[in-house]
Amino acid sequence: MHFTYLNPTKSAVFKDRFVTKVGETIVPFEKGRNGEVGLIGLPSSKSSISLSMAANAPESIRKALNSFSTYSATMQHDFRDERIVDFGDVPIHPTSVSDTIDRLHLSIQEMLQIDACNRYIMLGGDHGISYPSIHAFQKKYGTIGVIQWDAHHDVRNLEDGGRTNGTPFRSLLEEGIIKGEHLVQVGIRNYSNAEAYDQYANEKGIHVYMMEDIEEKGILPIIEKEVERLSSEVDFIYLSVDMDSVDQAHAPGCPAIGPGGFTSRELLSSIKKAAEFPKTRAMDIVEIDPSQDVRDMTSRLAAHVMMKFMYKA
Amino acid sequence: MHFTYLNPTKSAVFKDRFVTKVGETIVPFEKGRNGEVGLIGLPSSKSSISLSMAANAPESIRKALNSFSTYSATMQHDFRDERIVDFGDVPIHPTSVSDTIDRLHLSIQEMLQIDACNRYIMLGGDHGISYPSIHAFQKKYGTIGVIQWDAHHDVRNLEDGGRTNGTPFRSLLEEGIIKGEHLVQVGIRNYSNAEAYDQYANEKGIHVYMMEDIEEKGILPIIEKEVERLSSEVDFIYLSVDMDSVDQAHAPGCPAIGPGGFTSRELLSSIKKAAEFPKTRAMDIVEIDPSQDVRDMTSRLAAHVMMKFMYKA
Amino acid sequence: MHFTYLNPTKSAVFKDRFVTKVGETIVPFEKGRNGEVGLIGLPSSKSSISLSMAANAPESIRKALNSFSTYSATMQHDFRDERIVDFGDVPIHPTSVSDTIDRLHLSIQEMLQIDACNRYIMLGGDHGISYPSIHAFQKKYGTIGVIQWDAHHDVRNLEDGGRTNGTPFRSLLEEGIIKGEHLVQVGIRNYSNAEAYDQYANEKGIHVYMMEDIEEKGILPIIEKEVERLSSEVDFIYLSVDMDSVDQAHAPGCPAIGPGGFTSRELLSSIKKAAEFPKTRAMDIVEIDPSQDVRDMTSRLAAHVMMKFMYKA
Amino acid sequence: MHFTYLNPTKSAVFKDRFVTKVGETIVPFEKGRNGEVGLIGLPSSKSSISLSMAANAPESIRKALNSFSTYSATMQHDFRDERIVDFGDVPIHPTSVSDTIDRLHLSIQEMLQIDACNRYIMLGGDHGISYPSIHAFQKKYGTIGVIQWDAHHDVRNLEDGGRTNGTPFRSLLEEGIIKGEHLVQVGIRNYSNAEAYDQYANEKGIHVYMMEDIEEKGILPIIEKEVERLSSEVDFIYLSVDMDSVDQAHAPGCPAIGPGGFTSRELLSSIKKAAEFPKTRAMDIVEIDPSQDVRDMTSRLAAHVMMKFMYKA
Amino acid sequence: MHFTYLNPTKSAVFKDRFVTKVGETIVPFEKGRNGEVGLIGLPSSKSSISLSMAANAPESIRKALNSFSTYSATMQHDFRDERIVDFGDVPIHPTSVSDTIDRLHLSIQEMLQIDACNRYIMLGGDHGISYPSIHAFQKKYGTIGVIQWDAHHDVRNLEDGGRTNGTPFRSLLEEGIIKGEHLVQVGIRNYSNAEAYDQYANEKGIHVYMMEDIEEKGILPIIEKEVERLSSEVDFIYLSVDMDSVDQAHAPGCPAIGPGGFTSRELLSSIKKAAEFPKTRAMDIVEIDPSQDVRDMTSRLAAHVMMKFMYKA
Amino acid sequence: MHFTYLNPTKSAVFKDRFVTKVGETIVPFEKGRNGEVGLIGLPSSKSSISLSMAANAPESIRKALNSFSTYSATMQHDFRDERIVDFGDVPIHPTSVSDTIDRLHLSIQEMLQIDACNRYIMLGGDHGISYPSIHAFQKKYGTIGVIQWDAHHDVRNLEDGGRTNGTPFRSLLEEGIIKGEHLVQVGIRNYSNAEAYDQYANEKGIHVYMMEDIEEKGILPIIEKEVERLSSEVDFIYLSVDMDSVDQAHAPGCPAIGPGGFTSRELLSSIKKAAEFPKTRAMDIVEIDPSQDVRDMTSRLAAHVMMKFMYKA
Ligand SMILES: [Ca+2]
Ligand SMILES: [Ca+2]
Ligand SMILES: [Ca+2]
Ligand SMILES: [Ca+2]
Ligand SMILES: [Ca+2]
Ligand SMILES: [Ca+2]
Ligand SMILES: [Ca+2]
Ligand SMILES: [Ca+2]
Ligand SMILES: [Ca+2]
Ligand SMILES: [Ca+2]
Ligand SMILES: [Ca+2]
Ligand SMILES: [Ca+2]
Repeated sequence: MHFTYLNPTKSAVFKDRFVTKVGETIVPFEKGRNGEVGLIGLPSSKSSISLSMAANAPESIRKALNSFSTYSATMQHDFRDERIVDFGDVPIHPTSVSDTIDRLHLSIQEMLQIDACNRYIMLGGDHGISYPSIHAFQKKYGTIGVIQWDAHHDVRNLEDGGRTNGTPFRSLLEEGIIKGEHLVQVGIRNYSNAEAYDQYANEKGIHVYMMEDIEEKGILPIIEKEVERLSSEVDFIYLSVDMDSVDQAHAPGCPAIGPGGFTSRELLSSIKKAAEFPKTRAMDIVEIDPSQDVRDMTSRLAAHVMMKFMYKA
Repeated sequence: MHFTYLNPTKSAVFKDRFVTKVGETIVPFEKGRNGEVGLIGLPSSKSSISLSMAANAPESIRKALNSFSTYSATMQHDFRDERIVDFGDVPIHPTSVSDTIDRLHLSIQEMLQIDACNRYIMLGGDHGISYPSIHAFQKKYGTIGVIQWDAHHDVRNLEDGGRTNGTPFRSLLEEGIIKGEHLVQVGIRNYSNAEAYDQYANEKGIHVYMMEDIEEKGILPIIEKEVERLSSEVDFIYLSVDMDSVDQAHAPGCPAIGPGGFTSRELLSSIKKAAEFPKTRAMDIVEIDPSQDVRDMTSRLAAHVMMKFMYKA
Repeated sequence: MHFTYLNPTKSAVFKDRFVTKVGETIVPFEKGRNGEVGLIGLPSSKSSISLSMAANAPESIRKALNSFSTYSATMQHDFRDERIVDFGDVPIHPTSVSDTIDRLHLSIQEMLQIDACNRYIMLGGDHGISYPSIHAFQKKYGTIGVIQWDAHHDVRNLEDGGRTNGTPFRSLLEEGIIKGEHLVQVGIRNYSNAEAYDQYANEKGIHVYMMEDIEEKGILPIIEKEVERLSSEVDFIYLSVDMDSVDQAHAPGCPAIGPGGFTSRELLSSIKKAAEFPKTRAMDIVEIDPSQDVRDMTSRLAAHVMMKFMYKA
Repeated sequence: MHFTYLNPTKSAVFKDRFVTKVGETIVPFEKGRNGEVGLIGLPSSKSSISLSMAANAPESIRKALNSFSTYSATMQHDFRDERIVDFGDVPIHPTSVSDTIDRLHLSIQEMLQIDACNRYIMLGGDHGISYPSIHAFQKKYGTIGVIQWDAHHDVRNLEDGGRTNGTPFRSLLEEGIIKGEHLVQVGIRNYSNAEAYDQYANEKGIHVYMMEDIEEKGILPIIEKEVERLSSEVDFIYLSVDMDSVDQAHAPGCPAIGPGGFTSRELLSSIKKAAEFPKTRAMDIVEIDPSQDVRDMTSRLAAHVMMKFMYKA
Repeated sequence: MHFTYLNPTKSAVFKDRFVTKVGETIVPFEKGRNGEVGLIGLPSSKSSISLSMAANAPESIRKALNSFSTYSATMQHDFRDERIVDFGDVPIHPTSVSDTIDRLHLSIQEMLQIDACNRYIMLGGDHGISYPSIHAFQKKYGTIGVIQWDAHHDVRNLEDGGRTNGTPFRSLLEEGIIKGEHLVQVGIRNYSNAEAYDQYANEKGIHVYMMEDIEEKGILPIIEKEVERLSSEVDFIYLSVDMDSVDQAHAPGCPAIGPGGFTSRELLSSIKKAAEFPKTRAMDIVEIDPSQDVRDMTSRLAAHVMMKFMYKA
Repeated sequence: MHFTYLNPTKSAVFKDRFVTKVGETIVPFEKGRNGEVGLIGLPSSKSSISLSMAANAPESIRKALNSFSTYSATMQHDFRDERIVDFGDVPIHPTSVSDTIDRLHLSIQEMLQIDACNRYIMLGGDHGISYPSIHAFQKKYGTIGVIQWDAHHDVRNLEDGGRTNGTPFRSLLEEGIIKGEHLVQVGIRNYSNAEAYDQYANEKGIHVYMMEDIEEKGILPIIEKEVERLSSEVDFIYLSVDMDSVDQAHAPGCPAIGPGGFTSRELLSSIKKAAEFPKTRAMDIVEIDPSQDVRDMTSRLAAHVMMKFMYKA
């Protein structure tokens, strides 16, 4: 038996011998397998206040990795050998959000215990996943600093609807998992938050940067200054990237889109800047609903964000 | 102060003096207000196995009522005076499906206790709403017979995912709320169910009609025979209309669309037939996700189903 | 009778106790009711040269107000108490544009006579509405200055097609309702106008700023200089915002979209700048066709424009 | 100068030497040119009660003619030599519906005076075009019988909105252009009309066939009987095809879509039946809004309707 | 290392313990692996006359198999153990159609030589794939009879454009691979073919059934009669299913959609009928362009066609 | 015979007497006809690695020219008399890419031999068309310099798939049609190319500018410097505009969209800058797939690029 062209276990997509797609560097985790970056999918969006199919984003972002090659021309380096170890997606519970949160938390813990990777990427899902995720990193790595790209504070009260996607940082702060001064929020917008939560952010000492701050000072100096500060205060820096921080023209696939946000270039350059610091070792990407996207633009942008984090270039 | 054209509390849409839109006959419930038909929205779809925005259907179906007038030419009767009493939508819990089920159940109970209407329409949401809904009717009206239009049995086991939209009739049967022989399922399809659930249906004595039966015998004789039988065995007949019983060409907005189902005409004429029997006094319409629909076709079909039930014409 | 969860007259959408949506501040006008800002819908688009469903924009923009809260973090002020008095939509005549223009004009006059509000927002419809609207303001408030965001002059001849959406400022100038030097046009584009109308604009003394001027000097200094000038020359400043002044990437829902226009940020900051001047007391927003929009982006941007005008923040 | 492949005045689309597309048989009218069928576009939809871009349908239907060849296999005849003489589109007035109606009427009159063709097809636009169109035919050809495929009577009062697309047959009857008994309406639906208009239809002696009649008796016997009757009573039979008589699954591009209408097969076979009678010499096709269609399905169906009329096969 | 929920090599989609999805029965071919049905993807559509992305259909049809379970209720049999052996997709040549045809032919030959399966399903791609496919079956199995569901003859001349998707049966007939009387075409439509090709079909003795024949006699008797005949004349029967034989309302995703074709039910029941005969051992499904489909309806219908062929139920 | 409104050979679209649309300046080439700019369509996209319907772009771009007028307000000049001589589209071969390449090359050669125009615009199609196009210009005009706007080098090896849209500049360099130092690439992106091709570009002496260079230095100085240099080194400068150099938010209709590219303003101003140099006499625009575009935005941008080239304003 010999096949001239067929290969039952391989894609038949055109292959240029000199090109490695980022998607080709993904390998499923198996015992003993190590890699620079670990990847895990957290397809949970039943905690969203607004209806959301963000649970489909891990699939669409992984697929978008096939739109990119591993070569950085500015670095003159091909990252084809930097494999991504994929731990798969955590199965969510169909009818219990609290059970789902437990599953996410436990699964990340189990992933981290293996010590197979140096850095990690979590693909949401809605922003609710950051609570069990950051909690798991805190247990493993100690004091955590967080840079959050977001139009919203996400510190809503927990009484009105439980642990929704509007509450992850409230949960983290209330339970002492992170400290207010170790949380940096960039891209917060007028008319997208409430007075009570702005005051809460102030009281807790969160470092908040409005879009107006960014227009005035530029995003890069802000990121640089804050990651430098955090580097001296925490053990581990975690980036939490809510894609609705990006302008609706550049990220049309978020449930809570709006005008006046980051451009793609601002997002990409700021992730790269943050990733350059050695303590920056984890990132989640949340709030992409592929069913509402235009030509998977937002997933493609998310995939590019992954490369900025992984390759620092 | 006098306005020649403006009316701050009324729509400015064109009004033909001789036309009454069905939507115009809706009045919000208030104390002391009676009507032939009561309407309630059950915007719950977080219990769906597949991601679903069916929670948006009560809004889209109500809106589609404005595409129809109240006049039946075949009856030569205008139903403009048969008002629909609207009890509004039950607020769902953002993160707890079991809390939502309780809210749905209690709200329907409270609605029925008032005795303001003779018949009722429940707008889902996913099919999960039929469990708390039928339970409430059983408490109020006694033995319930159910005609279920559906491609699926909806008697999945409760262990794998809790009370999802695949389980309502399992819940009702297991808890003795309805009896197997009082449940009639029409439109069940091959390759859409499991052997275990077919056997369960048989063991419980559910009367199952496959699409093949319908193609062979016609839907109207089946409905007529079964509603007649139920009329002599139960106190109250409840129609449960899963729109995915309709062919995907005619109901493109269901989460679980597929080929080989009912045409619109078959659905409409069979609802009318069932509604003609005096014990037929309640109906739910479920499994429409407006975000996946084509030009609100499926919501418009659902609105027409409402008229067939309300006006029996 | 008591409902635990149901409320027949209220939306069942999730409510965070600390958040006020801008949409919640809208109250229908009734005798004796005052407010800072009056709102009126002008759903007229049969005067459009190109086919347009811009008449649906008042509904979509009002709905988009529910995507925003009343809190300005940069001002540290919650505008929850600044209610919007809604006078509803003017019913248009189905087959007579001239009758519609009369209805719009008379309705705005009647609204202004009540003196219930200090400032006003008119939601089009196409740009044809600015002629009857500005005329009504001129009758009430005296000399009017207009800042027009637009890719087009809108001073077409009236012979070729009557009072279309390409003619409002021609009508206003020809009838002496406004003076040329009191009309400022920003965002005019090459290849979007005719030589004859450019010359007409020059002859009439309109202050025209091309996109090239804006790229060179920035929009804010231009707005500041012109509103300052107008403040000393007129009694009342009216902003006329044609959304097609915005780049097609940022406002995909305009009938006459094109590349090379304002970004969302440029539009929003320039509206805020103009609104800060006390004589700036009216604004219309026109030329959004929701049926051609992407995820209501353009209506959402228009809603944000409203906030910049209302809250000056 | 010689081009091997280029032809500046011809489409570069693939051409099979044995295939003639129906679109290739269209020739623009010029003095002295005759043909079996004349074609005229009536791109008027500003008279629509609901917003409509049906004015774009003449372009989309003409384009759809390129999806069909001229060969009828059941007849074993190729109609490649039966050319369609195209009189072009009537320019509508941008802001005056009454002016537009005059233009349509006069243009059809001028077309008919030339006597260049034996039969005619009018492409709307909305149904408002049938009033000036049928009037022109009546002036030229005498007593007119009309078969109207429609979900609606279209005999609304003229006071509430003038001559909208809901009024053409009211206008024709009131002005004595046609008689009630010479108007046959097939496909009328429950909940799509008003009691007053049903009574009006009865009083005027219109022959009305509900969808229920069609389901019971079949469309072909009804058409046959009525065209035979008309053939003995009138000079000329005109078919007026409102595409919303077709079920929404088969004609998704109509502004007033709904369930329970004709299938494509029913429409096509009934047009063929009516066209077989020698007095059947004109047809209009109305109420397709290409901007709301799915893959131009409805325009493609309309093009097929044209062939059934033109080729009677 | 132990994961409680994670499984890096398995989908995290909800699993009901009693349900087997058809997609789960697919196993990649490997040496020594047998199965009832072999599956191969032929993602070739650069031979299409009209631009087509039908090459993406093997992926979308395979994915649609996850919408169906393996249980036939009418048979009371679960086909969970009837595995589908997947040989993967043939890599097409990016710029050479003739090279691609060679690859398809050789790959199918190599697949058949292994004798791993009893029956085979080929997923196109456009209809051009049937030429190399049927040729391979003829070499292996002897005289081939073909039932072709299609609106078109597909016997175009080879001079005007080479071996396009309009020519496969011309190629097969001209090269003597099949005989005219062994080719049965069902669903051929008026105005979709040319006189020359109709004559060619007659001369070659192809058995042609127009849609008019099917409306008159029904599809099942035709299929039954022809498959019986072929069973006595040929060694092997091959079904070639061009999805554009189905009405555009039921198969909106075909490049050459049109009205007046098969309903889904007619297609499905006729495939089942043909599959019941023991000599029916191969089927191709062609002409689905997923990028033009509505909610993958056409791929889902194709998947159902596969089940009718595989399970004969 | 006289028509008051009808004109069988002219569009009925609204005409403002003072406006000339760019589309109105297009005249089909005929013997003896000259003009400043020649236009040719190259509807070839079967050479695309990824499936593409870019062959439809010549039609959509020409249509988009009707969205623009001929008047440049910044120049105060109306280009209504600068007619575009249209040579039509080259018919492609349905199944042979190499035959298509020959047809494109020969057709452009034949067009140039006539010397009817001073400058030329080629509308693709995919980027594969630049190889036969530039080759034709080189034969006619001597040494060619090329400025390529692109995210990709397009110098892939020719072995893996033949002359795809990823290879045009490889072909041109390998065959000595252009020299490496005469090729300037702007907008090249990280993770969109391969190391081998970056090295190839370096070895060949291509002048490469990454997006990072453009963000740092601005696009205008780069263009100015390079066009000045080329002006002294070559006989003729050809612009090759791959629209995927533009950010996906601004050019959503390209097959290979991605974030981080040019804004519309950057593209337009840089084309104008390059066009101002007298040796800049040809331009191609490639890689727009209208079927994937949003409201023809990308074709509209391409049309604007044409004006920047034609009118240098
Ligand atoms: Ca967030
Ligand atoms: Ca957010
Ligand atoms: Ca169900
Ligand atoms: Ca179901
Ligand atoms: Ca304007
Ligand atoms: Ca404008
Ligand atoms: Ca009508
Ligand atoms: Ca109608
Ligand atoms: Ca075929
Ligand atoms: Ca076909
Ligand atoms: Ca390129
Ligand atoms: Ca490129």
